[in-house]
Amino acid sequence: MGELVRTTVAIERSLLETFDTWMAAHGYTNRSEAVRDIIRSVMTEAECKDPKAKVVGVLSIVYDHGTRSLGQELAHIQHEGHEEVLCSQHVHLDQHKCLEVILMQGPAGELRNLADTILATRGVKVGKLTLLTNNL
Amino acid sequence: MGELVRTTVAIERSLLETFDTWMAAHGYTNRSEAVRDIIRSVMTEAECKDPKAKVVGVLSIVYDHGTRSLGQELAHIQHEGHEEVLCSQHVHLDQHKCLEVILMQGPAGELRNLADTILATRGVKVGKLTLLTNNL
Amino acid sequence: MGELVRTTVAIERSLLETFDTWMAAHGYTNRSEAVRDIIRSVMTEAECKDPKAKVVGVLSIVYDHGTRSLGQELAHIQHEGHEEVLCSQHVHLDQHKCLEVILMQGPAGELRNLADTILATRGVKVGKLTLLTNNL
Amino acid sequence: MGELVRTTVAIERSLLETFDTWMAAHGYTNRSEAVRDIIRSVMTEAECKDPKAKVVGVLSIVYDHGTRSLGQELAHIQHEGHEEVLCSQHVHLDQHKCLEVILMQGPAGELRNLADTILATRGVKVGKLTLLTNNL
Repeated sequence: MGELVRTTVAIERSLLETFDTWMAAHGYTNRSEAVRDIIRSVMTEAECKDPKAKVVGVLSIVYDHGTRSLGQELAHIQHEGHEEVLCSQHVHLDQHKCLEVILMQGPAGELRNLADTILATRGVKVGKLTLLTNNL
Repeated sequence: MGELVRTTVAIERSLLETFDTWMAAHGYTNRSEAVRDIIRSVMTEAECKDPKAKVVGVLSIVYDHGTRSLGQELAHIQHEGHEEVLCSQHVHLDQHKCLEVILMQGPAGELRNLADTILATRGVKVGKLTLLTNNL
Repeated sequence: MGELVRTTVAIERSLLETFDTWMAAHGYTNRSEAVRDIIRSVMTEAECKDPKAKVVGVLSIVYDHGTRSLGQELAHIQHEGHEEVLCSQHVHLDQHKCLEVILMQGPAGELRNLADTILATRGVKVGKLTLLTNNL
Repeated sequence: MGELVRTTVAIERSLLETFDTWMAAHGYTNRSEAVRDIIRSVMTEAECKDPKAKVVGVLSIVYDHGTRSLGQELAHIQHEGHEEVLCSQHVHLDQHKCLEVILMQGPAGELRNLADTILATRGVKVGKLTLLTNNL
């Protein structure tokens, strides 16, 4: 954690009370921590819009294990993108369905393209890409 | 604006600098105002998830003026929901397309149902419901 | 409505059943209409990401009527952006709070900038910009 | 993949052309596959709103490795939630920052609560929960 500074914020009493209630409901015990997290979340979202920003990507997909050679095809795509793909994790959800989570790092635009390619692969049922910054 | 109180937040220097840059890029000149707006935005989103929360809704739709009796059908649905619908505004975008914006107030769940009915009406091309709180 | 063509889609029986249930719950009576709406919604989202795409914008804001000269300031900003702003509508929610909905048309990037300026104005409590295409 | 059935959809020629362009840009070679994916994505989003729906969750967080005993604290929380947590994966992004991805399965509401607890833990910088269905 970097050097901490203090800043004072003027806020309506009623809004602060609403915030404190929300904080408690979400497991926060420290108001500064909650404010920092909210700020980081907005900054992350803003930064990840820039296709050139170097970010972390987590692509979660569900697919049917039985689909002919899909596992191999996905491995091939990940190798093609080996500069971005860090590693992946595979869970057997039931007899048929797999959850695969692919961790990536690189420019946001390239991670989106790689995710698009994987999501468009026949047999990949549902999936979602999450982008996060690692510099906040 | 309600009574203002002051609260001090400890924050990493680097995060505060990122935030100040973002603030300036988004037209904020006052850090407290920016923090309050971010907090309100998170509180609004949390509150509007509760189907019983009384909120404000703005439904924006684009539709084709030429579609047989669609205007009349939409007017009918809005009258059925007259307890929630406050008013609406209509803009002729071009020779064919209309933008209609319907302002509503009521429990979030009922506004969502009303919006679903309108969005599912044949001829309504695209649309989106925005929910906001009016108590923050 | 433009010329209709027919396309045949192969789909898992179980997925189609889930879709039919969702359709009914959302007020659709016609499967083609529901599929078209879903496609339009994805196309709209994709198109509005391009800052140069000419789109329709609806900015909904809630603010406190009592705030010194805010109404005038908002009117001023809208006049500055008169090339994009089509019209606006104002509702008195209660003794203090106003809902103002501003309809705009223009390049997505410029509508976002204009919305940022308004949302950052002191006294504007909560707000959200919705972008829609009008060419689908 | 379950039994496939065929359904015919009537769609405006211009919308179909826009869709085909989008498909190609996103790596789809098969129109049925693209339509199925879009439908699944909407169904997934709808289903995950139900707190009781049994879904898959992927929580991605970035935190600072140096933070006193945070790793241990996160491990403790995951053990408390061992009925939902399937496994987790950890990547050392740089000398300080870690990416941890936690795979979970269970009722959407419980996964959200568990994610809230982890996201509110002091030292967890940014994070996001993705919910997916595994029955489509």
